[in-house]
Amino acid sequence: MSGIFSSIPKIEYKGRESKDPFSFKFYDPEEVVMGKKMKDHLRFALSYWHTLTGEGSDPFGDPTAVRPWDNIADPIEQAKERVKAAFEMMEKLGIGYFCFHDRDIVPEADTLEEYQRNLDTIADEIEKEMKRTGIKLLWGTSNCFSHPRFMHGAATSSNPEVFAYAAAQIKKAMEITHRLGGEGYVFWGGREGYETLLNTDLKLELDNFARMLKMAVDYAKKIGFKGQFYIEPKPKEPTKHQYDVDTSTVLGFLREHDLYDHFKMNIEANHATLAMHTFHHELYLSRIHGKLGSIDANQGDLMLGWDTDQFPSNIYDATFAMYEVLKAGGFTTGGLNFDAKVRRASFDVEDLFYGYIVGMDTFAQGLRIAAKLVEDNVLESILDKRYNGYNDGIGKKIVDNKVGFEELSEYAMKNGVSKLESGRQEMIESIINQYILCS
Amino acid sequence: MSGIFSSIPKIEYKGRESKDPFSFKFYDPEEVVMGKKMKDHLRFALSYWHTLTGEGSDPFGDPTAVRPWDNIADPIEQAKERVKAAFEMMEKLGIGYFCFHDRDIVPEADTLEEYQRNLDTIADEIEKEMKRTGIKLLWGTSNCFSHPRFMHGAATSSNPEVFAYAAAQIKKAMEITHRLGGEGYVFWGGREGYETLLNTDLKLELDNFARMLKMAVDYAKKIGFKGQFYIEPKPKEPTKHQYDVDTSTVLGFLREHDLYDHFKMNIEANHATLAMHTFHHELYLSRIHGKLGSIDANQGDLMLGWDTDQFPSNIYDATFAMYEVLKAGGFTTGGLNFDAKVRRASFDVEDLFYGYIVGMDTFAQGLRIAAKLVEDNVLESILDKRYNGYNDGIGKKIVDNKVGFEELSEYAMKNGVSKLESGRQEMIESIINQYILCS
Amino acid sequence: MSGIFSSIPKIEYKGRESKDPFSFKFYDPEEVVMGKKMKDHLRFALSYWHTLTGEGSDPFGDPTAVRPWDNIADPIEQAKERVKAAFEMMEKLGIGYFCFHDRDIVPEADTLEEYQRNLDTIADEIEKEMKRTGIKLLWGTSNCFSHPRFMHGAATSSNPEVFAYAAAQIKKAMEITHRLGGEGYVFWGGREGYETLLNTDLKLELDNFARMLKMAVDYAKKIGFKGQFYIEPKPKEPTKHQYDVDTSTVLGFLREHDLYDHFKMNIEANHATLAMHTFHHELYLSRIHGKLGSIDANQGDLMLGWDTDQFPSNIYDATFAMYEVLKAGGFTTGGLNFDAKVRRASFDVEDLFYGYIVGMDTFAQGLRIAAKLVEDNVLESILDKRYNGYNDGIGKKIVDNKVGFEELSEYAMKNGVSKLESGRQEMIESIINQYILCS
Amino acid sequence: MSGIFSSIPKIEYKGRESKDPFSFKFYDPEEVVMGKKMKDHLRFALSYWHTLTGEGSDPFGDPTAVRPWDNIADPIEQAKERVKAAFEMMEKLGIGYFCFHDRDIVPEADTLEEYQRNLDTIADEIEKEMKRTGIKLLWGTSNCFSHPRFMHGAATSSNPEVFAYAAAQIKKAMEITHRLGGEGYVFWGGREGYETLLNTDLKLELDNFARMLKMAVDYAKKIGFKGQFYIEPKPKEPTKHQYDVDTSTVLGFLREHDLYDHFKMNIEANHATLAMHTFHHELYLSRIHGKLGSIDANQGDLMLGWDTDQFPSNIYDATFAMYEVLKAGGFTTGGLNFDAKVRRASFDVEDLFYGYIVGMDTFAQGLRIAAKLVEDNVLESILDKRYNGYNDGIGKKIVDNKVGFEELSEYAMKNGVSKLESGRQEMIESIINQYILCS
Repeated sequence: MSGIFSSIPKIEYKGRESKDPFSFKFYDPEEVVMGKKMKDHLRFALSYWHTLTGEGSDPFGDPTAVRPWDNIADPIEQAKERVKAAFEMMEKLGIGYFCFHDRDIVPEADTLEEYQRNLDTIADEIEKEMKRTGIKLLWGTSNCFSHPRFMHGAATSSNPEVFAYAAAQIKKAMEITHRLGGEGYVFWGGREGYETLLNTDLKLELDNFARMLKMAVDYAKKIGFKGQFYIEPKPKEPTKHQYDVDTSTVLGFLREHDLYDHFKMNIEANHATLAMHTFHHELYLSRIHGKLGSIDANQGDLMLGWDTDQFPSNIYDATFAMYEVLKAGGFTTGGLNFDAKVRRASFDVEDLFYGYIVGMDTFAQGLRIAAKLVEDNVLESILDKRYNGYNDGIGKKIVDNKVGFEELSEYAMKNGVSKLESGRQEMIESIINQYILCS
Repeated sequence: MSGIFSSIPKIEYKGRESKDPFSFKFYDPEEVVMGKKMKDHLRFALSYWHTLTGEGSDPFGDPTAVRPWDNIADPIEQAKERVKAAFEMMEKLGIGYFCFHDRDIVPEADTLEEYQRNLDTIADEIEKEMKRTGIKLLWGTSNCFSHPRFMHGAATSSNPEVFAYAAAQIKKAMEITHRLGGEGYVFWGGREGYETLLNTDLKLELDNFARMLKMAVDYAKKIGFKGQFYIEPKPKEPTKHQYDVDTSTVLGFLREHDLYDHFKMNIEANHATLAMHTFHHELYLSRIHGKLGSIDANQGDLMLGWDTDQFPSNIYDATFAMYEVLKAGGFTTGGLNFDAKVRRASFDVEDLFYGYIVGMDTFAQGLRIAAKLVEDNVLESILDKRYNGYNDGIGKKIVDNKVGFEELSEYAMKNGVSKLESGRQEMIESIINQYILCS
Repeated sequence: MSGIFSSIPKIEYKGRESKDPFSFKFYDPEEVVMGKKMKDHLRFALSYWHTLTGEGSDPFGDPTAVRPWDNIADPIEQAKERVKAAFEMMEKLGIGYFCFHDRDIVPEADTLEEYQRNLDTIADEIEKEMKRTGIKLLWGTSNCFSHPRFMHGAATSSNPEVFAYAAAQIKKAMEITHRLGGEGYVFWGGREGYETLLNTDLKLELDNFARMLKMAVDYAKKIGFKGQFYIEPKPKEPTKHQYDVDTSTVLGFLREHDLYDHFKMNIEANHATLAMHTFHHELYLSRIHGKLGSIDANQGDLMLGWDTDQFPSNIYDATFAMYEVLKAGGFTTGGLNFDAKVRRASFDVEDLFYGYIVGMDTFAQGLRIAAKLVEDNVLESILDKRYNGYNDGIGKKIVDNKVGFEELSEYAMKNGVSKLESGRQEMIESIINQYILCS
Repeated sequence: MSGIFSSIPKIEYKGRESKDPFSFKFYDPEEVVMGKKMKDHLRFALSYWHTLTGEGSDPFGDPTAVRPWDNIADPIEQAKERVKAAFEMMEKLGIGYFCFHDRDIVPEADTLEEYQRNLDTIADEIEKEMKRTGIKLLWGTSNCFSHPRFMHGAATSSNPEVFAYAAAQIKKAMEITHRLGGEGYVFWGGREGYETLLNTDLKLELDNFARMLKMAVDYAKKIGFKGQFYIEPKPKEPTKHQYDVDTSTVLGFLREHDLYDHFKMNIEANHATLAMHTFHHELYLSRIHGKLGSIDANQGDLMLGWDTDQFPSNIYDATFAMYEVLKAGGFTTGGLNFDAKVRRASFDVEDLFYGYIVGMDTFAQGLRIAAKLVEDNVLESILDKRYNGYNDGIGKKIVDNKVGFEELSEYAMKNGVSKLESGRQEMIESIINQYILCS
């Protein structure tokens, strides 16, 4: 096979008994589930950073990744080779979308001007490949956290020149996203937080953060970018305390600053658990607020206190994620972006493919199971029965805001609490396991 | 000495070298700090539950506490003895406020009616003691979490009769609080959360929670209760996931449901750390929103994953807590309620006093240090210098909302980032230690 | 159906599509797996405490459980009814073993003498039921943690009279275990730890802990008890810091005090994770030391910092647990004791059965999957290939202790590191998911 | 002022009211505490890695540190400049010791041979500076974790060539340490652990780890190196699970492999807390086993799940650390090595000094407080009273191993538990605060 990853075949669906590691066991893109093809439900995306520029370093170790473009010395030529590699990989995996930060596609340059020229150069290459392959941009974003200038924050920097620089970067990243037909734009505030409260003006920083978001909203209107804006919460790391802790924090912040209508959530599994919520919780909470926008599909290690960004393999998590997506009516602009990296010791090109395969298979099977749960009305019927009391009588009066303390007190005096029902958690978990293990 | 705690003397300030365990080493109630007496800054309150009804049991062990009222068989007589004990204790400690849940002052009864009659009986006793001593009620609240009827929640129960029962309880607790001149009323939703998402209607539960709060606001107006309403956040325990996770979550929830103006925060140190924030963070965040209402002063164990409610002894935490209180302009309706319990193995009556002494001394010295930090303008001058760029030029344009992406991008193209300044965390920590150790 | 749980049928295996909540979907006791019946592999045991005396209270709430024996006022009669209930339940579930603490079967009495008489009375009842049903005692133990006398520890109490009292209790519990043909005896040191180092003589406490274990070993010899002794580690809760943190700590402690040969491990899933290890880790580590004795099968909540003792439902955990049991050659004296309790809101008798059903089904399916992994040599072949270098050449010299720094340095100078192989974690996780989802 | 850090003056003790940030407020090197000079108690050491080669990068950000040697292109010349800088810094701070990994003093080279030649070259420079200044080597070590070859471990690699390479590195590092008169040699197994159990042969890896340590012990004898060997435990990071979890794990491992007499512990504060122990706990446990060897003085952030290696500023931790050192009879071969780095945003050279100043001041004051606690017999008298029962009667028989279950049971039957004493935690915490705040 020719191409950059010449040793890797096209990954085909070969069924759940397949012993071929370069095959899907569960992901059958054309299979119809609840009236829609799997691939249209799942809208898988490749993450440019972990996949193309990730190197396998960690705070105690040097890069390990061995990549076909390692020996290209010129950074722009290397960047072009990465573009080809990205699209070849997506074609081989049958992935229809990708996501990127500005700094993923070209390295920093000596001046902002040169950097932006380089971005345009590579955006041209990407555009060509998009046309050639039909692959689309799920969302773009700007990396305003890696460079030393962002050490104190970007929008929340103590230095207004840094704020300005970040604005320039976001502006350009939005323009490229727009030009490439991106369906969304993500804000992950990697340095929007603090290291110590002792030198932090919390109010000014939070207000400035909102100012940056407002400027982005204004600028989108100006250039006609209609993609969806997302906020991706994370509670800590790299800073000691990030401002966008979790869905609740973000939604409250957006309300406070009159930005609520302009943003949806981009929920990352590993960020959810770092915030001490389950992935399911964050998705469910987003969904009931009409804010389940997109997903960064990965997996953390609950024994560890940092973002491990593993490829997702846990079927329980994938099932409930897809359950929430289905309950939300499916993705519109969003999708499943694998914000996941191979382990440092999985340094081969083959491992990159294995990573995507296990992730795609896990979510494909999660979709199948979730669809059965929805079709069989399993959880909905439990809820209907459990909250049935709110459909009439005193319950209905409560939800209709027809009663106050006096009526309710009178009711309680007369009726007390007539009967409690078990929550039946163990029985429900038993049913879930049947669906997980027998779908 | 006569009285219930006859072996315990009146606790007097004897100075920092005192070897008398029944003396204050740092808390000198009449000492004037920044123009106000220490006692008026600190507004210490006794927590009725931990102090009068706490028994020293834990999930693996029986009660241990030995109390003078243990042998009074009749629950109402016992409740009356506890009232006397509470006020005697506050007098001996020189504590000017107390806080209570309905269920602290009388046990549950066979009917709601009888329960409420008993509440009135004990409220009479409390009122007498308040008049006798001049001690005031900082806040009241209702325990809607201990009884089995609240196993699925109170306002967020799946059973509307439980909602009604909780409403009746809160109504009565508000009335008693009002009658006793309570300066506030706290909502801590001990069962407002979930055990498993599999049987939980998150939207209905959250909406019902807001409904209950609205009814409380309405009822306060009706009865003329002008005390401050507080929400006390906690992220988990007893439920797997509580709804009032932290300050951000609560403020967002209040905004969402048009309740924002009616509530302030009651921040508990141990709840803050369970939510993975520092105590300082939660107070600072509340302060900049004008929501620093009251404090539940205690201390958690960061090595443990549950609420240990220890008496506060950490001088760093107390210093920054009092710093935030001073920056907020001091307490108005709120105060420092010791939501703290003696360790299970500290079962003597003496230990109750030792607990309050260490807590009061720690916050008194924390106040002294914080006042010096404020008077010497230590942290403010650091902030002024650090964020100075926002006072003019491009920085001022940003905070005045005068610029957008285009101007900022142009600015960045021309100027880049001219100079970064160190955050100086280590130097600041060194200064803080001087204040801590030399005040 | 007659009996105490008259509404509950005998639980039969009805296959994985069964909609009957009172049936096993995966546990077919007579099915032969790797040459042995499922029931003989799994050796399920009922935990007397959670099942018969658990009440559903928590630190913030009163008991909720509704049990058929609630209204029996006389504690000894109630204890007898519990014996009947326990055996009826085991018969209905087809569980062949049980485990108990002394205090589970009778409550504390006014004197130690009376308490021990009561223990004998109930042991008589248990013995009768064991004869009638053929159900066996997996292990016994003594509760030296709930009573206030153990507030400072039992073997590690600062008070030698408490040490003596604990010794008396353990002596009696061992005698009853012996009399009932118990196959093991467990030590879980619920109060063997400390609350604060400030008042703790760590050396004396640890030495005394070893002294107690030695006395137990001596006494077993004296009375001819040949059952296996186990230590069950837990890192914290109820004390701030328990001495038996985890397998490594326990094995080191046993070596230090010449107790190594006399004990095996009893590994509890939830205790493993509280110690920041996976359940798999603790079992694997025990297995390679020949110390995998018995298992307390339950499940924790990794988002929470306390022991939730949930019924196990996670198929990954059950699979790797059974994998380790199979690799260890199967249980000999040990088994799978469900140290698990229904949720506080699962208060019905039905829930008790649902809890056991989900637990037994999960481990049954875990066994099936693990057996396939063993039979297909999946993980072993990965290890064989990965560590192949240690079978000859310089690798073999290392494991044969034939080389030192000089030879190895010379080797490295000459050869360097010729080739690194990927760890292939993602590929392996993909294979594991095939086994999990397709068995 | 001349030199590499020409802007920084010699740091002198100026007393606790000093406003000069480049002065010690608490560390007076010549002050005599309990008969010994402060500097001889504390034996401060500079960590070569964080101080000379640390760059301020993190997993989400590029290096930030600005250092005088940044512009020296030739790596050997740069390494020489770093040597000069290190010694100038130690002289300015009055630090008498340093610690290093091989890879700190020279970068990796193309071949092992060249690398070792470079090491010798720089060792020559170091030796000259040591002679010139009288500064000594506290301990040396080898970095067997950063290079990709160690991705699967060093001694615990699946590849024996990596084992050999690590052996060669450790051999050389020991030789240099020996030549420079190092008083100790540390093993921190940065990659000795696993990423996933699915591809890990736990037994072979642990055995090989012991083999490497044995070879080191043998080689030390051969070359006449009499310095103390230390193990530095850490539970996780960089690997998912490290083998040297904590003191208990390490001591057990050493016993298992007959290595116990050859090693002491090097306890790092931040590693202790990652293992869910307090720093105090790890030191106390080491001390009672005669294994308190040396200390890596730093500070973690208990809200974060990774090693932050902050300069220590918490006076409580420093006090109890020095208390344990004093109780252990003081350091012999060990000392206080600041395994601490300035925050990423503290990028100036000045910050390096501020970091050391706050660390040295904190431990100096910690020593003063600890000495007062020892001299006043504060904690010892509490222990004496609390455990007094073990000095005669039944208590003495227990500790003298004169009684067994029968005698103790008889005793308990007759005497029960006559009286329990409170643990007095709150009162003790109050006393500790007096010492902390008034020393």
